[in-house]
Amino acid sequence: MTAHFGTAPGSLADAMAAAGTEIDAVLDQLLPRPAGPEARLAEAMRYAVLAPGKRFRPILAVASADLFGARREAALRVAAAVEFAHTYSLVHDDLPCMDDDDVRRGQPSTHIRFDEATAVLAGDALMPLAFEVLARPETHAEPAVRTALMLALAEAVGPRGMVGGQTIDLAVEHQPADIGTITRMQQLKTGALIAFACESGAILGQAPDSQRQALRAYAHDLGLAFQIIDDLLDVEGTQEATGKKVGKDAGLGKATFVSLLGVERARNQAQMLADQAVSHLEQFGERATFLSRLARFVVQRSH
Amino acid sequence: MTAHFGTAPGSLADAMAAAGTEIDAVLDQLLPRPAGPEARLAEAMRYAVLAPGKRFRPILAVASADLFGARREAALRVAAAVEFAHTYSLVHDDLPCMDDDDVRRGQPSTHIRFDEATAVLAGDALMPLAFEVLARPETHAEPAVRTALMLALAEAVGPRGMVGGQTIDLAVEHQPADIGTITRMQQLKTGALIAFACESGAILGQAPDSQRQALRAYAHDLGLAFQIIDDLLDVEGTQEATGKKVGKDAGLGKATFVSLLGVERARNQAQMLADQAVSHLEQFGERATFLSRLARFVVQRSH
Repeated sequence: MTAHFGTAPGSLADAMAAAGTEIDAVLDQLLPRPAGPEARLAEAMRYAVLAPGKRFRPILAVASADLFGARREAALRVAAAVEFAHTYSLVHDDLPCMDDDDVRRGQPSTHIRFDEATAVLAGDALMPLAFEVLARPETHAEPAVRTALMLALAEAVGPRGMVGGQTIDLAVEHQPADIGTITRMQQLKTGALIAFACESGAILGQAPDSQRQALRAYAHDLGLAFQIIDDLLDVEGTQEATGKKVGKDAGLGKATFVSLLGVERARNQAQMLADQAVSHLEQFGERATFLSRLARFVVQRSH
Repeated sequence: MTAHFGTAPGSLADAMAAAGTEIDAVLDQLLPRPAGPEARLAEAMRYAVLAPGKRFRPILAVASADLFGARREAALRVAAAVEFAHTYSLVHDDLPCMDDDDVRRGQPSTHIRFDEATAVLAGDALMPLAFEVLARPETHAEPAVRTALMLALAEAVGPRGMVGGQTIDLAVEHQPADIGTITRMQQLKTGALIAFACESGAILGQAPDSQRQALRAYAHDLGLAFQIIDDLLDVEGTQEATGKKVGKDAGLGKATFVSLLGVERARNQAQMLADQAVSHLEQFGERATFLSRLARFVVQRSH
């Protein structure tokens, strides 16, 4: 996590970098160490997770926990669970039978560096690890809170969440899709886990339902803005900056926000969504400054 | 689930068939219904799970819950979670990059009937569905119990459980392995989830630790006996009876209990383990008759 966040002011970049460093340390600590005849599995899990990622989702989880004064250890454990879930989805999405991507986070994808079977298994092992981290008392003294976290994560990554979204993503490679389908795809594929990250602080802090709803609304707009920019970077970005192949969607003739709206309208839409995301944070006042600035950052990012 | 369990007495077969029917109904009810642009995912999940399986693991979970007088709905939900986890592992293990099996439960494997990407995603969706089922209040009124179930499941299927075991299984295709490695592989690959199924009733019933330990010991021996018979069926069984390809391990020159011990010693070992499994149930008296008979059945099964 380096500190060049486009036009974001220095202090936001510094805060993100500092959170990223803390998150990386906890990821390292929670991942299994290679040992025994199954050592290769732990190696692949560590390779995929500890690669230099943006840590956008876990940073959202930490920021959300901050809003409710949650213990730092709790916040970082939830953040780690989010990053394990996210990384597993990247490892599986990159497989030859899925999106067939050779480069991820600026390094060979897990199935290239290891092999396909090991990549499938590394993803398979990261998912239960996320639940294991949430299930332990270190995450929260109250079992009801841990259960609520696990239920929300399970919904976010399951058939009505992330995996459902990836299913639609594969389907639209072969058939025309309208903006409604693309929006639903993104809400499931990336939006659901982003929403979990944003809501997790409210769950940890046992906040009133209205606050959890506000964060969900923030996440909804933020997630779509994030994805529109991702689509723009696929058109306008470079592999060097994004750490993954670009120009893929256009090459496949795949419907995206950019192909459906055009570059300019897509950028305006992302900007509008970011403004709207910020408006949902009003009730939190100054405490939500970091989350507001994060929403602005999302539409200005270059990777 | 039909009622011909080798030489098992009629009443055990009937009890297993009746439990299997109840379990199948709950699986059907908890699986998502195909809808929307992601319908194919739900279709593949249903295809894999609702295929005619032995339901051995969920039956263990139901029998364990019976021991502690748990509500039937709770028992069946835990059983369903176990079967979702088990089925996901079969779907992924059958992939071309893993064990490359075309036939499973007497029908084309999920990646053959659908495609590889859909098979990966169906497995990916079944795992969080298992956690979602456990996380909901219908499973148990006490969040502490649900959390304990989820922690135990996460450990059983994670890098130090099922996925770790599959990693070793792939490794021993390429290198010689001794009985210690094969035993560890099986304890992780199949033993850990069988142990979760056996222990789950004690968790649901908030039983004293000593009882949970007894069930764990029972499961340990039962799981190894089950696997030895599986290896024997790979040598002596037919695809018709087992619902999957046979003769695979020998074809690959892979070390198994049978290749390392020989047929006769392997069968004796399984018999001894079944006796030992039963001995761990002593403290439960007559209440554990079904579990005792299940252990006997395991070493007599023909599929």
